[in-house]
Amino acid sequence: MQDHYIGALDIGGTKIAAIVAGPEGPLARITAPTPKSGTRRALPEKAIELLQTACRQAGIPDDRIDSIGVASCGPFVLEDGLLALSTPNICGAGAKANDLPNDWKTVPLEQVLREKYSRVVIENDCVAALAGERAFGAVQDEPNCVYVTWSTGIGFGLCVDGRLLRGKHGNAGHAGHMLMNEQEDAVCGCGNRGDIESLISGRNLANRLNMTAANLFNAARDGRTDARQVAAEAAKWFGRTLYNLTATLDTRRFVIGGSVWVHHGEWLAPLVKAEVESRFPALTDGVTITPSGLGTMVTDIGALSLVLPDTWATHWRINTPWQKLMP
Amino acid sequence: MQDHYIGALDIGGTKIAAIVAGPEGPLARITAPTPKSGTRRALPEKAIELLQTACRQAGIPDDRIDSIGVASCGPFVLEDGLLALSTPNICGAGAKANDLPNDWKTVPLEQVLREKYSRVVIENDCVAALAGERAFGAVQDEPNCVYVTWSTGIGFGLCVDGRLLRGKHGNAGHAGHMLMNEQEDAVCGCGNRGDIESLISGRNLANRLNMTAANLFNAARDGRTDARQVAAEAAKWFGRTLYNLTATLDTRRFVIGGSVWVHHGEWLAPLVKAEVESRFPALTDGVTITPSGLGTMVTDIGALSLVLPDTWATHWRINTPWQKLMP
Repeated sequence: MQDHYIGALDIGGTKIAAIVAGPEGPLARITAPTPKSGTRRALPEKAIELLQTACRQAGIPDDRIDSIGVASCGPFVLEDGLLALSTPNICGAGAKANDLPNDWKTVPLEQVLREKYSRVVIENDCVAALAGERAFGAVQDEPNCVYVTWSTGIGFGLCVDGRLLRGKHGNAGHAGHMLMNEQEDAVCGCGNRGDIESLISGRNLANRLNMTAANLFNAARDGRTDARQVAAEAAKWFGRTLYNLTATLDTRRFVIGGSVWVHHGEWLAPLVKAEVESRFPALTDGVTITPSGLGTMVTDIGALSLVLPDTWATHWRINTPWQKLMP
Repeated sequence: MQDHYIGALDIGGTKIAAIVAGPEGPLARITAPTPKSGTRRALPEKAIELLQTACRQAGIPDDRIDSIGVASCGPFVLEDGLLALSTPNICGAGAKANDLPNDWKTVPLEQVLREKYSRVVIENDCVAALAGERAFGAVQDEPNCVYVTWSTGIGFGLCVDGRLLRGKHGNAGHAGHMLMNEQEDAVCGCGNRGDIESLISGRNLANRLNMTAANLFNAARDGRTDARQVAAEAAKWFGRTLYNLTATLDTRRFVIGGSVWVHHGEWLAPLVKAEVESRFPALTDGVTITPSGLGTMVTDIGALSLVLPDTWATHWRINTPWQKLMP
């Protein structure tokens, strides 16, 4: 029997996914709603329980897992040198305008996970996604690349000169909170007015025409004029965001994931590309936009890739074993 | 006689500075206007001539210099794998709204310098400045830091996780061309409307009250109401730019140089800091703003630091020998 396995967690504002994997690929994946009540330890304790359940489902003893990769929504703060979550849609204390059933200021994520696992690598979810795309997806050979998710929120994973960017507390890539248009009346969950997330995230677009973002983009694709106008305006802001990152980081390739792009990337891409290319050719020449190579599994595979042994990676690259777990 | 010296170039839109240095420190520094006519090789050939003159002035044979560090205004493009300048205020072809006396599309900077010197390290001027501040200045111990120059233009050098960022063509840090306020009627030299350089660079501020930027900031400091209002608005946009970079890179410390900050940083700093701190505390808590530790020599020292032997650096750090060359 193989004596070494790895685990991964994908921690979002709505749900947690737990995966266990061996050299041949992922063995089991289970999900549960993100705990938002109880003690500050409730969330990481639930995550450990999910990993243990996944082990049982895969038929492996859970003490064979010593390394876990964690992709989590942020921002993070450091507490005694360990990463804790201060995510506004999980932690009730200090969050603006919400009704979370807790008064957590932070969630001691790394501390609780380290009580159980000897090796814990935590990254922002988009940084992990980019690690996955770098290992197995659309940017295996491109040292200057950015992963973007356009979904309920807007998040980024950044890679410059072949290295993933982390920053002082692992929060590099929160460019969804970059200010872009003061005059807009859109307000972000973080309190900003006119940041890119307030302008085009699924959550905020849903308010414009009083329909879900999914319905809005479907209507726009099908030619409904008012929806088309809102979607085209959103694509323009998205393109400007990619331009701003290109000016800042000298990026060559953008990999786009998230529900908006998975369903509508094909017709949105030319609008976004036109906006990028309309600016400063010395910086934007040769910039390309490509869809995620790992689709709905990008964050899970990204989390696994944080602790994946090199010897397994070669095999995974050839056999793409995650496809059988695609939800 | 010491048999090894190094050279450095600081190439700007207005002037070129050339420096030669030995283990004890810089030995000579001379400047000349940036060539903007003649062949495409005129600029780097002039730079070599200046280095040779500096050698004569220092009393050393110019064949003792084999390594040069170059800090240059950008953007760069790659030509046959070598960095060339495509700077809008040097290269006449393709520049918007100017009257440069040449039709250069690019200047083959690295190619011409390599014909003469065996080791040539070229960085964007603000990247070089940050290298100087990392080696000898205000951020020797801070792995997540950004150098900003606020002067005729706005430029950035970026350091994340202890590494300077370069990007696909060495153009990381052109965040002065980040779009921030669509509604503004300010137009940048790059053609953008409402990027940060169009909003607050010295060149663009000078148009507001029909006086030089220097006079505008002096008048604001001395309490003239209309000037104070323009300067305070500029400080707000500058603060928003630092916030945008913090959200993107998770920066801890900003080091500010350039003529605006050298003369007015003391009273502008609280305005800028207030703007940064007004946003998303999980990202901005603990962010500090500090003036350049190398002042007017920052780019020159930065260029030297690109090729400085480690054994010299220790001595320089103790004796700060560049101070005797301060212009």
